[in-house]
Order: sequence, then structure tokens, then C-alpha cells
Amino acid sequence: MKAFASDNYSGIHPEILHAMTEANHEHVGSYGNDIYTQKAVEKFKEHFGKEIEVFFVYNGTGANVLGLSAMTKSFNSIIAPELAHINVDESTAPEKFLGCKIIGVPTTHGKLTPALVEERIIRVHDQHHPQAKVISISQTSEYATVYTIEEIKALSVLAKKHNMYLHMDGSRIANAAVSLNKGLREFTRDAGVDVLSFGGTKNGMMVGEAVVFFNTSLAADFSYQRKQGMQLHSKMRFISAQFNALLSNDLWKRNASHANNMAKLLEQKLRELPAVTITQPVEANGVFAILPKQNIEKVQEAIFFYVWNEKTNECRFMCSYNTTEEDINTLVDAIRKYSA
Amino acid sequence: MKAFASDNYSGIHPEILHAMTEANHEHVGSYGNDIYTQKAVEKFKEHFGKEIEVFFVYNGTGANVLGLSAMTKSFNSIIAPELAHINVDESTAPEKFLGCKIIGVPTTHGKLTPALVEERIIRVHDQHHPQAKVISISQTSEYATVYTIEEIKALSVLAKKHNMYLHMDGSRIANAAVSLNKGLREFTRDAGVDVLSFGGTKNGMMVGEAVVFFNTSLAADFSYQRKQGMQLHSKMRFISAQFNALLSNDLWKRNASHANNMAKLLEQKLRELPAVTITQPVEANGVFAILPKQNIEKVQEAIFFYVWNEKTNECRFMCSYNTTEEDINTLVDAIRKYSA
Amino acid sequence: MKAFASDNYSGIHPEILHAMTEANHEHVGSYGNDIYTQKAVEKFKEHFGKEIEVFFVYNGTGANVLGLSAMTKSFNSIIAPELAHINVDESTAPEKFLGCKIIGVPTTHGKLTPALVEERIIRVHDQHHPQAKVISISQTSEYATVYTIEEIKALSVLAKKHNMYLHMDGSRIANAAVSLNKGLREFTRDAGVDVLSFGGTKNGMMVGEAVVFFNTSLAADFSYQRKQGMQLHSKMRFISAQFNALLSNDLWKRNASHANNMAKLLEQKLRELPAVTITQPVEANGVFAILPKQNIEKVQEAIFFYVWNEKTNECRFMCSYNTTEEDINTLVDAIRKYSA
Amino acid sequence: MKAFASDNYSGIHPEILHAMTEANHEHVGSYGNDIYTQKAVEKFKEHFGKEIEVFFVYNGTGANVLGLSAMTKSFNSIIAPELAHINVDESTAPEKFLGCKIIGVPTTHGKLTPALVEERIIRVHDQHHPQAKVISISQTSEYATVYTIEEIKALSVLAKKHNMYLHMDGSRIANAAVSLNKGLREFTRDAGVDVLSFGGTKNGMMVGEAVVFFNTSLAADFSYQRKQGMQLHSKMRFISAQFNALLSNDLWKRNASHANNMAKLLEQKLRELPAVTITQPVEANGVFAILPKQNIEKVQEAIFFYVWNEKTNECRFMCSYNTTEEDINTLVDAIRKYSA
Repeated sequence: MKAFASDNYSGIHPEILHAMTEANHEHVGSYGNDIYTQKAVEKFKEHFGKEIEVFFVYNGTGANVLGLSAMTKSFNSIIAPELAHINVDESTAPEKFLGCKIIGVPTTHGKLTPALVEERIIRVHDQHHPQAKVISISQTSEYATVYTIEEIKALSVLAKKHNMYLHMDGSRIANAAVSLNKGLREFTRDAGVDVLSFGGTKNGMMVGEAVVFFNTSLAADFSYQRKQGMQLHSKMRFISAQFNALLSNDLWKRNASHANNMAKLLEQKLRELPAVTITQPVEANGVFAILPKQNIEKVQEAIFFYVWNEKTNECRFMCSYNTTEEDINTLVDAIRKYSA
Repeated sequence: MKAFASDNYSGIHPEILHAMTEANHEHVGSYGNDIYTQKAVEKFKEHFGKEIEVFFVYNGTGANVLGLSAMTKSFNSIIAPELAHINVDESTAPEKFLGCKIIGVPTTHGKLTPALVEERIIRVHDQHHPQAKVISISQTSEYATVYTIEEIKALSVLAKKHNMYLHMDGSRIANAAVSLNKGLREFTRDAGVDVLSFGGTKNGMMVGEAVVFFNTSLAADFSYQRKQGMQLHSKMRFISAQFNALLSNDLWKRNASHANNMAKLLEQKLRELPAVTITQPVEANGVFAILPKQNIEKVQEAIFFYVWNEKTNECRFMCSYNTTEEDINTLVDAIRKYSA
Repeated sequence: MKAFASDNYSGIHPEILHAMTEANHEHVGSYGNDIYTQKAVEKFKEHFGKEIEVFFVYNGTGANVLGLSAMTKSFNSIIAPELAHINVDESTAPEKFLGCKIIGVPTTHGKLTPALVEERIIRVHDQHHPQAKVISISQTSEYATVYTIEEIKALSVLAKKHNMYLHMDGSRIANAAVSLNKGLREFTRDAGVDVLSFGGTKNGMMVGEAVVFFNTSLAADFSYQRKQGMQLHSKMRFISAQFNALLSNDLWKRNASHANNMAKLLEQKLRELPAVTITQPVEANGVFAILPKQNIEKVQEAIFFYVWNEKTNECRFMCSYNTTEEDINTLVDAIRKYSA
Repeated sequence: MKAFASDNYSGIHPEILHAMTEANHEHVGSYGNDIYTQKAVEKFKEHFGKEIEVFFVYNGTGANVLGLSAMTKSFNSIIAPELAHINVDESTAPEKFLGCKIIGVPTTHGKLTPALVEERIIRVHDQHHPQAKVISISQTSEYATVYTIEEIKALSVLAKKHNMYLHMDGSRIANAAVSLNKGLREFTRDAGVDVLSFGGTKNGMMVGEAVVFFNTSLAADFSYQRKQGMQLHSKMRFISAQFNALLSNDLWKRNASHANNMAKLLEQKLRELPAVTITQPVEANGVFAILPKQNIEKVQEAIFFYVWNEKTNECRFMCSYNTTEEDINTLVDAIRKYSA
């Protein structure tokens, strides 16, 4: 089976599985007290610089919610795009765990702008009103678009101006780096991000995300918050070994490049189909397009994908490290066939 | 490195790693919508009967806290042994996620009795007082002792009498089954347990626990609670494949038998050492013993373990599926040497 | 000092203070176990019918949040107008106490419609998405407009259709009843409201609101939820005595009628001023109007009120049971003077 | 009706009701923006010194939970006597609102000692274990006993040594001050208390408690926490006016002295009854005594009180500012009559 439903339909990249297998011997300390975790932390420092703090967690919801918990008190609000994962795809984990309000902002192509954010920073110091404390962006966005470095810096400046923090949900951060043709650091730490959710699972890992603190003063309590948040793994070496593989030999970049290239190829082929309308700039590993409503189910039977917006028939096609040209042809052929 | 620190110092059992590798091909649905998860659920039903509900989560804290969330409202209390994992080893995850109070009861050998529980069921219907709703026991207990079927049934009867539920933290459930020489069902579902945390990680898995509902009316909302609790894995097939292996070909039993046998062997050898006092009945895969204080650190350097009680110098020695006679000899020799 | 800032700038109506004084003798049972509370509950039943449950709390935030807690689980969402008190004026009490997400809907004149609500009821049974469970309306609305009985019934029908509940924030419910020229029951219980926050403080009481359950199955746990929510008063008789007075001799109606009439008078006088634009229908005890920006501060010095919308210079003028024609003249004269 | 059930069976002291009535005129700012609140804050500063922060809330549960929220993060634990109000009489408000664990310590006569506390400060910096952050004492204790200044100082020293805070539940603080024959400051601020719940309701007020910060760095967020905690009153002047009266003309002291004297008198008379055993030192306004079981209900019919401990038949007799010698005679006569 192949699909364009989500990059998490993919399995484990062989180099990562190999690293897990290599780590599987005898006994090592639990909860991160092991050599694999030390090495993984070093890998993160190679990419982001030495003065960071890194913690490994299970999943993206855990990374986002716990990262935000390090930046907020329960009377705060968090400003995010309306379709942000933290606003619509994580049940009410943010509200329950943080106590905070998420303020969802309608956006163009999934990206916040300083103007959009600033008009939501209201009633500062008014005890009756949630106090805005975090700007949270997804890189890549939910529409698989990519913030430029300048766009991120502008949001960081705004955050600092209002005594707020900048959070980045980087569940697809590698795809963004490849899209920007930059390293991982230039558009994160160097652009003023305070805390980053670094995604592993969607880029070839089996399980594991990282919470990366560039603003290390926020990390003081994080080991307690992670345990309390039910996100501390006992046999940590097996998450760490995966990160070691992902961050070595440019695997993160190779995987993301392939996925992005496949999305570009898909975009090209879809643009040739008159019945299809591309709706979002294709900047990373996802393509959003409106298909004729009557054909969607039949195409889904050929190769599965999700309808993103039931009202407009906008569909989402996610590519991953092991999407193939053949998969793309299967999809494009099916669309062509059923919309003919 | 080998150690007696915890059964989670062990790695992945080869049969389980093999199953993960076998599951690693192409694309499958995420979040449990896959054939491996279907099979794993079937495996659970083979062991526990058809009329159950099973959900996979990441870790023991998640399994316990979310299982308890299905049984409680936030004004409830949960009665558990004072040293229960949920009371002293899960940060304040239970309090924060549930809102409930954990009432920790001092016990002998880590086991609740109906008499101990009943005297904590007070002020029923008093709006000012936390309302007792769950009896939570660990099988095996924190002292690696094992409740008999009759003991569990008696607690279940008490729970029903007071309109309460019986929860079992089974992070080491396989060790208990082997100790009782029973299947998994007789002392859980058949003994009146409502919700079970079924442990995988400590018995040879890399990651994964299960919440098993015998009282299926409690499971109605659990998919939402799991997602909200940040315990829903996207690439679920890799947790499910592990359970498939663990629950096939008696692997769960073979692993637990070995660990229990090693503990028995260790007990025998320690009983020969006059400087050592065994403190708890050895019924599963752990041995608790008081060592001469001045020798503990030196023995730990030879092969690591934890001091369980700093005041009494009671130490805990956990055996796992890959503990060897050689490891035991290393430990016993070191104790003998340094207490000579 | 007099002001149009809020109806809570008013003090205690003399008949209410008298009732408190009358209740002040010797000893009575605490926490509602007293004759005054029994009588107050009877008063509520006179107005709403016998088959209700009533609980007294301290304030509107308490009434709203606790009423909602009886209708929700933490993975639910609550659909409310964007400017609802629960969305923007109660800090993050709803999120923290309930765990739920509030979905704020932009409205015309502060009122939800079935169409506005229904398009927010999405992704039903999707474990990743907050599950919509309550429609919450304010009667009167935040813009002091009033839902008709038919409008409320339509929302109730919609709620039932989607297995949801209808909540009414009635902090100004008396003003609504007077506006509709109906009793308290016709547009609440009889219109399908499940749980009502019944306001006392803004209509002449010193302290006290009531949570009224028309759907009494939701009330089973409320005594625990109120205590846990820190809203149970020990010397309850003094809240109850206030409600007795408010609900006797039509005091609730007399107070609200006066306030509504004053708002009507103010509207009439403001409509004569060319510099002033009335922005919302005047249906109860509040008038919303745009004033020339340069004059606002000077008018505020003459008699205080709040700017509701800093961007549009829309101001809010709330009348209460003791607003006088003289107060209105003071305001209108100041506006006239400074906008001349 | 008169009773010894609780000091909250009493009504409003006439001087306090008079102050409320005096404050009832026209309009004043809401939420504490009024002259009465300014005066009340000044009154607190007269008693405790200028460098404090004071916030008024509704009730004792609110004062305790919110005060503790200013001192804790959700992964902390709070060490308190087993029978502390926060541990057994506030539903699970502390757990739900704070997320923290309350560690209840068995005590003699309801008072913590440094030794009892210190042995609960374990596993410091262990991410798996709740981190002890607050010592919470009740002054007077739940057994109406009183900590000496030296005892409080010793606990404060211990708290500082372990980077913890000292919290005092002072719902009956006036009774303690009178018992110690000291002002309010010597055994609170001067003894090292960080945050105090200052009780008004049980000493003659209708409603209202205060959270007093001696460690003012903890108060920075409290206005948000109070609003979020549903404890901010709109018509604040009426709480403030009560505190003004209570803290003027020694009313707090007169009320408490009377109550304490009545308890002393009751103790004397009970000591004359051979069937009665006084169980706790009588140091403030409560007497604890074991009565013959068979007589308890009959005595309760003569004048009501609560059985404190169903197993031992220990009963609690609370005196208040308006307990009379006649009430005491009624009680003692009934006991004598039915135990004859």
C-alpha cells in the first residue's frame, strides 16, 4: 500500500532502523542516562550550537504542549494560526494541560504575520482577559508553506516587543530547511525562536520528537514537566539512536529533499490537469488542490489521500521520504481518468 | 554493561525487534488504522476474551493515568498503596491530569487488603471530602510481591460494594501470571478488575503499554482521552507489532519465567550470605534485601542496582528477560567480597 | 459618584439589604443547610417550576464555569459568541477548570444563530479534534441585545440534533425578561435551555448567582463540583436571603424595568446628537454608541463609562436599577458640550 | 437556634453589618477599584507593615488554593498535617487547581514539627517524584491548638533551608493571636510566613477572606490567578468594608477573645464531668472531647455539634463571637443529664 494521506503513513527509514538495532544490546541506563542519548544531544548541538537544551519526547502533541508549558502560565493565551495543529488537531490537550487559551487567527496560506498577531495582543495587564504570551508558528505550516527567515525574525521582534515568546512547531522542520536551502539553525535559533518542537516521526523515525530550547532559561523545570506530561521514555536509548541516525550523514536532509522533490513533481503534473486547481504555494512536501467533487472517492480508492476542506473540495497530498514517481503517476493517472 | 537497577535497563527482545522489522514496509494507515493493530487487538482477545476494549499507549504513566481518567471524575479519590507508582513515581501526573487525590496507604509487602481500603472509604456523599472511587493495585506490587486471585477478588467485591472500581497497574503483569502459574485472565478480568494497565516495556518491548477495559462501559470516551493525554502514536503499527510478538508463542511467559527464575536464584544465593537480609517475599522478578551500608557503593560499582530505602539500606534487585546466572554471580560475589 | 461603566458599580438594593439584615440572628446551619436557602430554592421553583435543581454560587464566572463543567468532559468544545464573557472576560478560568476549548464565533449584535453554530460543529467523532458539546449564549448578550424565544428554541433544537446542550449565561436575565415582556421561564426552561447562570449581582444583590438546572440529570455531581470549584459559601443564608428578596414582590422585574427604561431614555437622547452613532439595537439596559474620539476622555471625566472598542470608539453605557434621569442628563450634556 | 457545630453558624457581627450598610450608596468602581478597598488594604498594612500585598477573595478554600498557587508549580508537593483543611475538607480543589500533591502527615494535636516535615522532603531533584515546595500549617490548627512563635520560626527556617515556602491557613488567625497574646504580625510575617490566608468569615464577617503576601515577590501574578480562580468579586467594596470594620477598634480581637474565653469556660465545665474526656489542649475557640457514644445524639438534639471522629467518639465544640454562657450551660447540662 502507498498513499498521500500523511507522511506518518511511512515506516522507519532503514538507516534509522539499523541504528535502533545497533543500540539493542545488554543493559543501559534508563530515562536518558545512556551513551546514545548523550550522542544524540551532541548531534543537536552540532546543528544548533552548544548553548541549547534538548529533551526527547514521544510525539508532536507532547512536544508542542510541553514546550508551550515551559513558556506559559495558565492565565496566558497563545496566538497561532486558526488551522494550527495545536488549535484543531490535538484534541484539547493544550487547554487541559496548560490551562491557556489558544487564539486561532485566520491566515493566508497558513502563515501568521506581525500585523495579524499584533491586533490580537489586547487588554494587556487586564486581569479579566487572557494575557498573550506566545506566538506559535508551524514550520512548515499546515498548508506546507514555509516562512522565510525574515518573516520569522519579524515575528520574533514582535514577540520580544510585547514580552512574549516565539514557539515553532517543527514537525516538518527538515522539509522547511530544504525548502529554504538553509541549515536547521538559521531560521530557528538565529531567527529568534525560543522553543522548537523538532520533528522526527514524519521524516523517517518510528517514534520520537525533540523539544529544543534556544532560550535555555525556559528549560529549568522541563525534566519535571516532561515526566508529569507522561512523555518520558524509559528505554530512551531507542529514541536517541533514531535521532543519531537522522542527524548523521545528512539523512534528515536527504529524506526531506526527496519528499519535497516529489511534491514539486506532483505539482507539475497536477498543473497539467485542467480539472485540478492548486490552492497553496508548493514550498515543501505537501500539495493542496481542489479536485472535482464527484471524482474524489474514486481517486481515493486508487491511492488514498485526505479531503482537507469538505466545503471547497480542497484535498491534501503529502509526500514522504519513500514516496515514488510511480506513486505520483498512480495518483495523477487516477485523477485524469476520473475527471475525464 | 549489565545491571539489576530496573527491568527497563534491558533492550528489545530479538523476537520483538524482528516483528518491528517485518512491519516496516511501505505505507499503512496511522493512529491504529492498520492490520498490525487489528492483529494485536485480536491477540489481547485471545488472552482475555472477546468482550474487552484495548488501547495502546506509550508508557506506564500514560496507561495508569489515562486508565484512571476513564474511571474517575475530578472530585474523586483513588486508594492505592503508599509506594504505588501512581503515588510516588509519576511526578504529579495523576493529580494534574485527573484532578483527583491519591490516598496512599501504608502496607505490608506492598499489597492492599480490604480492611486497609475500607477504613479509607470515609465521608461518602460529603461534598467537602474527596469521594473514593477507585482501588488501584499493582500486580506485581512495588515490592515484587503478587496478589493471589482470592485477594484480588476480595478487593473487587469491596469495590463493587462501595460503587467503586478496581484498577490494576500491570506493568509487570507477566511476572505475576508466571508466579501464580495462571493465564493472564484468571487474576484480572475473572477476578473483577475493571481496567488494567498491561505492561510491555519491562518485559522486552521497546515502547508500548496497553489499557485493557474489562468493564467496557468505561471505554466509551477513551480514544478522546488518549489523544488529549498525548499518548496516541501516529505510526501505531510499530507498537502493535511488538505486542503481536510478545503475545505470540508464549514470549510474554518465557520472558517473565526467566526473570522470575533469576530472582529466585538470586534469593537463594543471597540467603547464604549472613550479611544480607531478604526483606520481602520473593514472588516475581525482584529481590529486596538489606545490605551492609558501608559496602553498597562498592557493590554498585561492580554491578549497578538501586537503594530502595536510604534509611534502612534496603536495596532492590530487579531481574529481566536477559539477566544471566553470570550477572547473579557477579552481584553475589561482590556482596560477598565487600561484606567479608 | 454615578457612572455608566457597569451595572456592578451599583450597590445593594435596600430591600435586599433589609433581607440580609433580617437573616442576621443567632446560628443557622452552614453551607445551605438553613431555612433561608430552602425558601430561596422555593422561590426559584415558583418562577421556573418544581422540577429544577438550583445551586447558589458567588459570581458569574463561577456560575458559568461550573454550569459548563456539568455539561462537558475535558475533550469537548463550547461554541459561544466571540465576545462572550466566557471567551474574553473570565481570564482562562473556563480552559483551566474545564480543559475545554471555547470556540468564539463572530456575530452580529452578539447573538449566535443556528447557521453560525452549525458550521462550527465539525469533525464529529474525530479523536484528534475537540468535540463540540455545548452552545453557550448570553441573555442579554454582551451587546445588551435580547434573543427572542424563537431564536432560543431554534438553538435548542440544533443542540439536541447534535447531542449537545444549550447553556445560557443569564447574568442580566431579568433585563431580558423585561425586554421580552415575559416571565423568567418562557425563554429559558420552556425554550429548551439545559443549564442557566442566573444573575443576581448586576440586578441589585451584593453577591450571589445561581446555577439552575432544567436538565436535572446534569446536576447529580454539582454539589461536589461547586465545592471543588471554590464556590460554596459557608454562611449561605446571606446569599439565599438576597435571592428571596430579589425574587419576591417583583423586585427582579422592577429593578430590571427601571434599568431598561433608563437605557431607552438614554438612547432617545443620544439619537438627537448628530455626533453620536448608536451601534446596537437597544433592547435591554445597555446602549452602545460611537462617540467622537477626541471627546471621550472629557466626557468620561464628567461621568465614567468604558470604551468598548478602541479601534472604532464604540462606547458602552450600562444602566442599573439606580441610574437616574439626572445621570442621563449629565452624560448627554457632557457629550453635547464636548462634541459641539 | 444556637449550636457548637462551627463558628460559621454565626451571622454577621453588628459592627460589620453596619459598615456594609454605610458602604451602600450610589456607585463605586468595581473589582476593588474603590475607596473601601484602599482603606481595607491600609488596615492590613497597619497590622502587618507596609511592605505587603493583600488580595480579597470569597472563601477559605479560595484563599488557600490561590495562595498556594502563587507558591507552586504543578509538579510540586505540599506538606501539611493529615487533617489539614486543604487535605480533607476542600474536596479536591487543591489537586485540581494546582496539579500538586498534598502530603498529609499524621500529627499530634494537629501541628507539624520540623522533624515530621523533614522526613517527607525526599528525592529532591528526582524528576519522577513530586518536588516538595511548601509547608502548609493551620493557625489555629484543625484541633484548635496554636503554634508558638518559636514553632513557626523553626518551620520557616526549615522551609528556607530546603528552598521551600511557608504557608499559613489562618481561617482562625484572630483566635491564635489572642491565644498567644500577640498582635497579628509577630507569629506570621515576623516568624517567616510567606503567604497567609487571613480569615474573616469565621470571626464575624458575612463573606470574605484575604490572601496576604509577606513574600511579595510571589504576588506578581496574583490578580490573574484570582480572576482565573473565580474568586474576584465585582462589588468588592462590600467585602472591603467588612475588613475595615473587623480590623478597626480591635473588633477582630474582641470577637476572638470572646470565642476563646467561651471555649475555656466550656473546657472547665466539661472537666467536671467524669463521663467526658478532653482530648486536645484547649488553646483557642474549640474544645475536643470524647463523649459516651450512647448519649451523643440526644445531646445533639439539645444543642448541635459535630462528631469529629466516628471511631473514637471524639466530638468538636466550636465557640464563636456570639456563643453565650447560656449556650454552654445548655450543652453541659445536656451532657450531664444524658450521661448520668
